[in-house]
Amino acid sequence: MTDTKPIAAAQVPLRRRSTNYPEPFASRVVGREKRALGDPFGLTNFGVNLTRLQPGAVSALRHAHTRQDEWIYILEGNPTLITNTGETELSPGMCAGFKAATEDAHHLVNRSVADVVYLEVGDRTAGDCVTYPDDDITARLGSDGHWQFAHKDGTPYA
Amino acid sequence: MTDTKPIAAAQVPLRRRSTNYPEPFASRVVGREKRALGDPFGLTNFGVNLTRLQPGAVSALRHAHTRQDEWIYILEGNPTLITNTGETELSPGMCAGFKAATEDAHHLVNRSVADVVYLEVGDRTAGDCVTYPDDDITARLGSDGHWQFAHKDGTPYA
Repeated sequence: MTDTKPIAAAQVPLRRRSTNYPEPFASRVVGREKRALGDPFGLTNFGVNLTRLQPGAVSALRHAHTRQDEWIYILEGNPTLITNTGETELSPGMCAGFKAATEDAHHLVNRSVADVVYLEVGDRTAGDCVTYPDDDITARLGSDGHWQFAHKDGTPYA
Repeated sequence: MTDTKPIAAAQVPLRRRSTNYPEPFASRVVGREKRALGDPFGLTNFGVNLTRLQPGAVSALRHAHTRQDEWIYILEGNPTLITNTGETELSPGMCAGFKAATEDAHHLVNRSVADVVYLEVGDRTAGDCVTYPDDDITARLGSDGHWQFAHKDGTPYA
């Protein structure tokens, strides 16, 4: 399970499921590829992804976590970071962090004509919930480690 | 305290204290520079450093954590990773992870003539202890969030 042999990040296989979102949201993240870089080493306290966004792709629905911190580092390209307070164009070597419970919803959008590649880190604190100010969806991390998605009125997504 | 404005990692100020180690170990990490990349955003669940090793410098004493996972990603240069099982030369785009409680003690050594730059991520799980198989030192994360260093016979370092 745990192997400490170093690996070339770009050669790690793509994650089998490209997204956990139910439709119509899954289709919104077409053009996004993720390679899990912590799981191969058996890490469980946090996860790391090497994520590639094709032109036009987005990192996620714009969202905020209640308990889990997030952090990103841009390796290639120029994504636009959109938060509650506005938009910022990022470039390689820039980073940003999103503290849990601040309600500052964020995502990256690739409005450029070249791919964007970045590292994203998030911890796995239990009991996390995700809010999506722009969309009729909420998420809760179940005690089984799976995300449960519902409409904002509480109706589960099928 | 919390600011979500993105930053250029290389322009973040160096950490004020270059190491927490007591002597004679503090002198062993001369030539290592760290910039904290999660703290500026108020992150507390995990930390991220942008770390530079001059030629001859080492990342840390060779060590293993009991509760905290660690992960590294090489941005520049060719450090040598030394673990319980041997040595591996790394290059940009490679990553490695160190699961807590595996007792696989690790560190990076820059045996090259150029600087090494890498990202390191570690969570902040309480009650962590650090073991150092090559040196007469142990560390324990106190409930006050500070590291307490002792000799292997339990005598505290002054």
